[in-house]
Amino acid sequence: MNSFTPDYTILMGPGPSNVHPRVLNAMSKPIIGHLDPAFVGLMDEIKSLLRYAFQTENQLTFPVSAPGSAGMETCFVNLVEPGDKVIVCQNGVFGGRMKENVERSGGIAIMVEDRWGEAISLAKVEQALAEHSDAKILAFVHAETSTGVRSDAEGLARLAQLHDCLTLMDCVTSLGGIPVLVDEWGIDAAYSGTQKCLSCPPGLSPVTFSERAVSKIRERRTKVQSWFLDVSMVMNYWAEGQTARSYHHTAPINAMYALHESLVLLKEEGLEQAWARHAHTHSQLREGLEALGFEYLVTPDNRLPQLNAVRIPDPLKAEEAALRTRLLKDEKFEIGGGLGALAGEIWRIGLMGHGASQGHVDACLKHLRALV
Amino acid sequence: MNSFTPDYTILMGPGPSNVHPRVLNAMSKPIIGHLDPAFVGLMDEIKSLLRYAFQTENQLTFPVSAPGSAGMETCFVNLVEPGDKVIVCQNGVFGGRMKENVERSGGIAIMVEDRWGEAISLAKVEQALAEHSDAKILAFVHAETSTGVRSDAEGLARLAQLHDCLTLMDCVTSLGGIPVLVDEWGIDAAYSGTQKCLSCPPGLSPVTFSERAVSKIRERRTKVQSWFLDVSMVMNYWAEGQTARSYHHTAPINAMYALHESLVLLKEEGLEQAWARHAHTHSQLREGLEALGFEYLVTPDNRLPQLNAVRIPDPLKAEEAALRTRLLKDEKFEIGGGLGALAGEIWRIGLMGHGASQGHVDACLKHLRALV
Repeated sequence: MNSFTPDYTILMGPGPSNVHPRVLNAMSKPIIGHLDPAFVGLMDEIKSLLRYAFQTENQLTFPVSAPGSAGMETCFVNLVEPGDKVIVCQNGVFGGRMKENVERSGGIAIMVEDRWGEAISLAKVEQALAEHSDAKILAFVHAETSTGVRSDAEGLARLAQLHDCLTLMDCVTSLGGIPVLVDEWGIDAAYSGTQKCLSCPPGLSPVTFSERAVSKIRERRTKVQSWFLDVSMVMNYWAEGQTARSYHHTAPINAMYALHESLVLLKEEGLEQAWARHAHTHSQLREGLEALGFEYLVTPDNRLPQLNAVRIPDPLKAEEAALRTRLLKDEKFEIGGGLGALAGEIWRIGLMGHGASQGHVDACLKHLRALV
Repeated sequence: MNSFTPDYTILMGPGPSNVHPRVLNAMSKPIIGHLDPAFVGLMDEIKSLLRYAFQTENQLTFPVSAPGSAGMETCFVNLVEPGDKVIVCQNGVFGGRMKENVERSGGIAIMVEDRWGEAISLAKVEQALAEHSDAKILAFVHAETSTGVRSDAEGLARLAQLHDCLTLMDCVTSLGGIPVLVDEWGIDAAYSGTQKCLSCPPGLSPVTFSERAVSKIRERRTKVQSWFLDVSMVMNYWAEGQTARSYHHTAPINAMYALHESLVLLKEEGLEQAWARHAHTHSQLREGLEALGFEYLVTPDNRLPQLNAVRIPDPLKAEEAALRTRLLKDEKFEIGGGLGALAGEIWRIGLMGHGASQGHVDACLKHLRALV
């Protein structure tokens, strides 16, 4: 078998997004030991940079050594104890995965469902919180990657606080692309991914836990069912200023180099500037797409700039998968299809991180213009 | 904050080991989508190459998208159901972690303990199997990274088969360094890591499951407690020849490039040649260390060539940690200390993968000669 040589591809699907060259370069730096003081220093910097990205002072902020799905599981297995009631909002694929996580953690999931393509209804959530006054956690997806919908995280967190619930937020697709204000909103646990608006390869999942969340974890009556994802053990591994940091697992060293560099890039640009860039390239893309006759799935106020879900024109529907395959094969240009009931109905066009650029907008409009 | 620039360091601790330049180069190739047919082809090649590395025809052979600890957990959470009795051999750190995994999966761990530095006693295991005829699984560590001990995996697997138990083997440190013959020995589940004898950065955990293991998983009465590590779902994701591969999680694309390249390197060299190289460099190192007065912790027949545990000479014991820190800082040369009761008593010197070379032997002997 031969070495693998991937073609450079413009990734404008729902993620992974294109990786910044500086991040790829960082990833290929020589490996050092995971207990080397230089690596420990790197871990401290990553924690500090993640606090900036999440806009939080949370002590317990670190990257889980596995992709976003494991970040989700980290939040649930640590916060949910058997019998705990969790209100789970579902308006796309990832709310369904949250339900699985609650149930496999021994919890009871109370589902609040909204149509795919719509934002989470605060009224329905308020009603569920009122009906289930014993609920411990409200869980929702900030930016639904399956539909391109942004929900009102601040409003949802406020409702949870009024009902004395912890708030657990998926911000896989939002972090770095639109405001994610963990402390200001009062989010208690959040997880993200590296392969969306952070311009980093997939493989790590930044998480953050508030003091309230840490208290709930400390007061658990039962052990966390996962050894690998038990944050009480990971806490010691990622603890700051410890001379003898306790060994938990071998961190993915080179992936950490990459995450560090992607966060340095974010800091250099500034969060506000990164959000503005995503918003700006989105409006350029939107104008172009609308001029070509594409319609958005999501109403303007709930749209994610970094994930543009547009209805496939009727004449193209039958061959839409073949069209995407041809674009990928011949043009090295990738967009995403729909999921579930939206398969064959929408395309998902990402403008994430490094890929939220004029060049990507132009490439996308050129390729789609040739189709319609 | 600035970009991170690690110094090139000779890694001769218990892992991670130095990464082959071709592997680092592969890791920094442009990212492609995780559903791109080219990536799906890469996944198929990785599975095929892993079957070669494990010497198995097992269909269910793939890399877990997280480090070795998660590979361990994958084996336990899928194979252990609440109430299942598991015989766990402990002769170092990792047997203890297995116990945690059994218990957190709702199983009952029957511990068979041997002294750290000694191989697992087949007689004790046979007795435990006889006493616990209802045990479902025998779990053990083939190559104990904490002590440098090799246990008789073939003999242990044979005992398990005689007592109708599944065999679950940790081969994190053995894979690629010494023979790991999954099919010939009749191992039912095995997990490894990438950062030892495969010369790849940490972050992925190759696993393999026999048909007998898959049957036990298919017959489970309860759901696997982890969504992320549930192999019945991952199976569909890694299934071969599927046109519409079901989405499970976003694979760590660039880490997969690296693993692929490291396995291509292993195939190019040939497993037997890789084992011979580890054995040869080990004997060179051993001669040199013994000439300097170092004594091995482990008896010759149970020694791992890739992990040399030697007693620290008495005059150096008090300052041993400082000596290692100085070697790392001034010489960019890393060896490992002892764990548990062996902390301050032994040094662990790795000769793993790409690092099992004449150059590393010479470097080690030069630096240690300067100390004694």
